[in-house]
Amino acid sequence: MRSESPDVPIDLDAIDPRSTPGLPGHKVTGKDPKLWARAEVERIGGELATQQEMLFAQAAVDPGQGRSVLLVLQAMDCGGKDGAVKRVAGAMNPLGLHIKAFGPPTSQERRGGFLWRIRKALPPVGYVGVFNRSHYEDVLVVRVNGLAPESVWRPRYEKINEFEREVVEGGTAVVKVMLHISRDEQRKRLMQRLVDPAKHWKFNPDDLDSRARWDDYHAAYAEALARCDSDSAPWYVLPADRKWYRDWALSHLLRQTFADLKLSYPQPDYDLAAQRRRLEADG
Amino acid sequence: MRSESPDVPIDLDAIDPRSTPGLPGHKVTGKDPKLWARAEVERIGGELATQQEMLFAQAAVDPGQGRSVLLVLQAMDCGGKDGAVKRVAGAMNPLGLHIKAFGPPTSQERRGGFLWRIRKALPPVGYVGVFNRSHYEDVLVVRVNGLAPESVWRPRYEKINEFEREVVEGGTAVVKVMLHISRDEQRKRLMQRLVDPAKHWKFNPDDLDSRARWDDYHAAYAEALARCDSDSAPWYVLPADRKWYRDWALSHLLRQTFADLKLSYPQPDYDLAAQRRRLEADG
Repeated sequence: MRSESPDVPIDLDAIDPRSTPGLPGHKVTGKDPKLWARAEVERIGGELATQQEMLFAQAAVDPGQGRSVLLVLQAMDCGGKDGAVKRVAGAMNPLGLHIKAFGPPTSQERRGGFLWRIRKALPPVGYVGVFNRSHYEDVLVVRVNGLAPESVWRPRYEKINEFEREVVEGGTAVVKVMLHISRDEQRKRLMQRLVDPAKHWKFNPDDLDSRARWDDYHAAYAEALARCDSDSAPWYVLPADRKWYRDWALSHLLRQTFADLKLSYPQPDYDLAAQRRRLEADG
Repeated sequence: MRSESPDVPIDLDAIDPRSTPGLPGHKVTGKDPKLWARAEVERIGGELATQQEMLFAQAAVDPGQGRSVLLVLQAMDCGGKDGAVKRVAGAMNPLGLHIKAFGPPTSQERRGGFLWRIRKALPPVGYVGVFNRSHYEDVLVVRVNGLAPESVWRPRYEKINEFEREVVEGGTAVVKVMLHISRDEQRKRLMQRLVDPAKHWKFNPDDLDSRARWDDYHAAYAEALARCDSDSAPWYVLPADRKWYRDWALSHLLRQTFADLKLSYPQPDYDLAAQRRRLEADG
């Protein structure tokens, strides 16, 4: 993602939610793209699990030099955040995951400033954190529903940029992803929640109010994505109407994030040969 | 698990760590037991994920009536706690897991009493919690290494029982599992950690000191398991030399724990038909 300048909002309408950018064509893979992508998600999942273990191991051996990863997930309702976490983060060891879902802040949380609860939820060193919704709600739902005046939410872009800079400087790789679905796809998924008894609990009548403000939300996203995009904490818009593409694109992105960290298993901080001898002597 | 009385320690030596109790025989399944067990772990994993979602959904709709599950995992070093979490808890949605690994307490944590940090880490309503080590270390390593006098650790059995009673009464199903490996199997696994560069970080020279106190640890386990076993928070000793059996037995046990909760998807707390009409009108 990169708009020409923070003053030019990202044009979400120019990104087709059914498109599959970056996916090698049928002629390259020789397979149905959906089957190919699913197999790749499985394969990349194994790589992500190894990378996560290295991240964890390095932090265990030398916490001072340890790193973390933070994935920030945003989407319109039914955008597939939960599904993406299940499929992509689910490939990693749950012991090394630090997942936090943010709902509307409590009055206690509001008192601390909008970033207070976010800072508290940052992944510890060595962990892969996932924010299911995030501080971006404070320039999205807050703006669209007028929960705070513009004089309050507008300065938040800069506060968010400062905050994320700090987080990155502290050793955490930050990736921000908007799962981008179409209005039609949202309708289909909302209807599924109203039809399938196993999904009724996921539906909230408020979702239809948010849906009625689709364009306002897109405008708010467009500005947030432009103003809070940076080299160190970039935004990515992933077309998400096709779940198999969404999972592949997110896996791919996380693999890239890990690759940039150039992780490896740490050297032992004890004398290997001496320990082996001791264990051998012990029978 | 059930000894005749809390005064009679569990006889761990009577449980063969290579045994596979409860596993249907080759003649029943018509398959190699290892392959059969692995396929079952996969299949049961799907059921666990559904049960976990129901648990989460019920708590989301009616937190006051919501339940939680807590799995307490203990084992000698290399007993397979991490592997079991990865394979068994890994089948569930990471969004609904609340995993906590306990290391030696900090001085801050010690000040609050041994249960202070444990209470703080209990799973929120609707979540499946996993304790990787637990308050039992306070009657295991503390006893074996003399980190506190008997006058301090002995009263802890009763404190643990009271604590667990409270937790269960609060709506959390508690299952406690000791992964039981043999001294030989531990030796093999420790050696793997000293041979495989991807595993060096898991080895700690202290592990060999603990190994030298194998019998003392077993005595401490035997007493803790007997004194803190109850109908509402039972202890299970799972033979764990064979990883495929360990994973199957743990999956099986968690499935039983969920079954006892008699979970189902919650009824909608909104007017289904009215919401459907509204969505249909919206196009």
